[in-house]
Amino acid sequence: MYSDFKLASDRPAYIQVKDYMKRLMMTGAIQGDQKLPSTRELSALLHVSRNTVLSAYADLEDEGYIYAVKGRGHFAVPSSRDSEAKPQGGQLDWGARLNDYARLAEAHDLMKHGIRAPKGAIVFTSIAPDEKLFDLPNVRRAFLDRMAMEGEVLLNYGYAKGYKPLIEYLAAYMENKGVDMEGKDLLITSGFTEGLNLVLSVLNKESGRILCENPTHHTAIKNFKMHGYDIAGVDMEPDGISLEKLELALSQGSYDAAYLVPSYHNPTGIVMSQQKRLEALRLLGKAQIPVIEDGFNEELRYSGAHIAPLAACVGEGNNSLIYLGSFSKILFPGIRVGWVLADRTLIDVLESVKRARSIHTSTLDQSLLYQYLYNGNFEKYLKRVKAVYKRKYELATQCCEASIPMKRLSGDGGLHLFVEFDPGFRTRELLEVCSAQGVVFTPGDIFFTDGGGHHTLRLGFSRVSEDDIVKGIRIIGEAAKGMLQQP
Amino acid sequence: MYSDFKLASDRPAYIQVKDYMKRLMMTGAIQGDQKLPSTRELSALLHVSRNTVLSAYADLEDEGYIYAVKGRGHFAVPSSRDSEAKPQGGQLDWGARLNDYARLAEAHDLMKHGIRAPKGAIVFTSIAPDEKLFDLPNVRRAFLDRMAMEGEVLLNYGYAKGYKPLIEYLAAYMENKGVDMEGKDLLITSGFTEGLNLVLSVLNKESGRILCENPTHHTAIKNFKMHGYDIAGVDMEPDGISLEKLELALSQGSYDAAYLVPSYHNPTGIVMSQQKRLEALRLLGKAQIPVIEDGFNEELRYSGAHIAPLAACVGEGNNSLIYLGSFSKILFPGIRVGWVLADRTLIDVLESVKRARSIHTSTLDQSLLYQYLYNGNFEKYLKRVKAVYKRKYELATQCCEASIPMKRLSGDGGLHLFVEFDPGFRTRELLEVCSAQGVVFTPGDIFFTDGGGHHTLRLGFSRVSEDDIVKGIRIIGEAAKGMLQQP
Repeated sequence: MYSDFKLASDRPAYIQVKDYMKRLMMTGAIQGDQKLPSTRELSALLHVSRNTVLSAYADLEDEGYIYAVKGRGHFAVPSSRDSEAKPQGGQLDWGARLNDYARLAEAHDLMKHGIRAPKGAIVFTSIAPDEKLFDLPNVRRAFLDRMAMEGEVLLNYGYAKGYKPLIEYLAAYMENKGVDMEGKDLLITSGFTEGLNLVLSVLNKESGRILCENPTHHTAIKNFKMHGYDIAGVDMEPDGISLEKLELALSQGSYDAAYLVPSYHNPTGIVMSQQKRLEALRLLGKAQIPVIEDGFNEELRYSGAHIAPLAACVGEGNNSLIYLGSFSKILFPGIRVGWVLADRTLIDVLESVKRARSIHTSTLDQSLLYQYLYNGNFEKYLKRVKAVYKRKYELATQCCEASIPMKRLSGDGGLHLFVEFDPGFRTRELLEVCSAQGVVFTPGDIFFTDGGGHHTLRLGFSRVSEDDIVKGIRIIGEAAKGMLQQP
Repeated sequence: MYSDFKLASDRPAYIQVKDYMKRLMMTGAIQGDQKLPSTRELSALLHVSRNTVLSAYADLEDEGYIYAVKGRGHFAVPSSRDSEAKPQGGQLDWGARLNDYARLAEAHDLMKHGIRAPKGAIVFTSIAPDEKLFDLPNVRRAFLDRMAMEGEVLLNYGYAKGYKPLIEYLAAYMENKGVDMEGKDLLITSGFTEGLNLVLSVLNKESGRILCENPTHHTAIKNFKMHGYDIAGVDMEPDGISLEKLELALSQGSYDAAYLVPSYHNPTGIVMSQQKRLEALRLLGKAQIPVIEDGFNEELRYSGAHIAPLAACVGEGNNSLIYLGSFSKILFPGIRVGWVLADRTLIDVLESVKRARSIHTSTLDQSLLYQYLYNGNFEKYLKRVKAVYKRKYELATQCCEASIPMKRLSGDGGLHLFVEFDPGFRTRELLEVCSAQGVVFTPGDIFFTDGGGHHTLRLGFSRVSEDDIVKGIRIIGEAAKGMLQQP
């Protein structure tokens, strides 16, 4: 006893002594009513000053862990640990206590069942931003500015709807994208994902079916399944969802919602044409289907005209468009802030559900993001990272075209490309070969709603260096050629 | 046009010009292919420098909002706003599209349907900490320390389970409370509320019934109802839940879970005795019922021996205890960090559900909290605020005893007291009288699971000044006496 005490240099010594003594009492090494070493003794045993021990003992007494007897020293208060026999029972079989929702979440958890990269591998599986580009000095400044202005407000309870200056900023931001805010409102969420989950949790399930592009964002598929929806995926064409197949799907029954990723679609990287946006909205509007628009990476446009979100393309009086926004994918994913823009009635209910579930999104995150946006740092940052990502995008595109024996390459911008081989090809087998050579990517099948896509893969290049993009794609290309040459 | 432009001093001027021009194009004030003012003209019209306009136009061109024609100037890119007829349709009746879950969240939303305080009133409804006590300099320091160490890591994606240093800190923290971590694990959540909601969302519903104290925490009742549970409330006694009634309830059927607030119970403020803790755990363990322990305000003990949470009182091998912790109630509610401590199998599934719903809790919040705890600031802060809250607690207790014609007062610590009048009394009527005199409190009925409690009220004193505590309770007491004297 006492010889295993190790003092960390960056934490107050008296707290370390206090914690150490609590541990001894809680583990039963010191029993209830047992005498503790005198402050002088403990100071020698632990190699700390006597004042440190005095502070620790004073705190322990104050917290009710020890008691002093005049002239006799300190004693441990009997704890639950060494008290009378503890109650038996309470051994549950947790496997049997969990519902389908829990099981589906676990089964579709890519972090648990996804691709493992060998050490030192070139990793094309991530579409997160490159943290080396982060603009830390201005983040620090935004935090300090906001704390100086209203630190007390930021640290106490906020509102479920969100931090007001941020809501107002984002409303103006969406108006500048052409969105008519009449009759609409905004709710701040902990990222896009919470927004989608909240919307799905309040929709009345009638048909139990949901429409989306096929392939589509894996997190969306997971959430649809967890909410018990059947998924009707509509095939993609080079300029977005197939209108013909969309009409066909609409003629085959009703749907509780449609989910679309019109810009830099995940995983294909396709930007839906303006004509298709209007026509898809017309068809879905006629069918009275709420449309959930994923504003994913909308800002990562490298060339061509400004793209209006679906939310800016709807006709007057339309209240069925639900826009889910987030800067996380380009700015700071660690700051969990997104937003839902939708009809006021819907936002009002989402606000109550948000409050019931988690009270509100971190005010610190919200206020820091607001200040960073307001200061104009987002625009500067975006300009800088777009230059880097554009270069990587063009390089990756060239490399794919030069090396990979593919049928089609798609990706109009954003942080990833999508490769399609001939239908018989198996990208899971390709992955095995590549992984052995230190390169991993995401097999496309996880994005498909119909069990297809075994001949596709997604390449995320945002966090891969230019050298590794060249090297990694060459390895993938050679492995694919090798597989195609086999009988 | 142009005369309504107002320049804010704290945001880059070129961004304001850019936003202003976007707005003109998006609202149709400038049509597609219409010529924009020259940079010289716009500079004069908006009273900004020509360089500002040059920067704004360069950005607008880069973002695809305008195009330049050599020798002729800049023109607006046709936008969705002024494009061909927008699609009609998409007018939904949102009322009919929402499910019961949504409706229950809205109906039980106290922020919408709760007590409104008249301006300048003495407000006893809050049990949030007093933000005037917040320790902003050390919060700032914790942020800057952490950012300097690993800013890039904090701002990119983290893990659903939580920020590792914080998980390890909290595991040790719980061990020091006497919890055996063998077979257990920790998940970081966005506060207590998310923890409770996550647990409820994964439990298999068999009996569809849940056990709890009556009265109990309103947010818990709301979440039980939203999850479709019938609630069986067990009456409280001065030293905690009635064991006799608990046994009776257990004999009357099975339950999917029990929810207990053993320390500074909300709303009664009662601390369950050690004997009752062990006996309640024995009964619930025998019945194989998962126990959800709300570690609410456990730290706000003003006197007496250290209290062990239920999680420290369970016998070896018990895996049915789910502890929900949070510092929000005492430290910073704006930082949304709590934790679930439970059996490893359960935590593993909760991690996947958390990831599916919101990816992870703000890493910034987690790392800031970790650093603040590690630096020993929490202990110092707690000592300081406990002195303040203890004084308020004692003062409020004295005032109630002196002025209020009540049957019983409870509250063993924490930030609130609970007042019971004779059964026929109506605290909603009392509230009306008091509110007219500028004092509000929380009528107790919202905490009751059986429609009772109309003769009770909760007094939160944490954010009320000592003068106002004296004045407010005197007003309540006089109003109550007045009501009792009426025939």
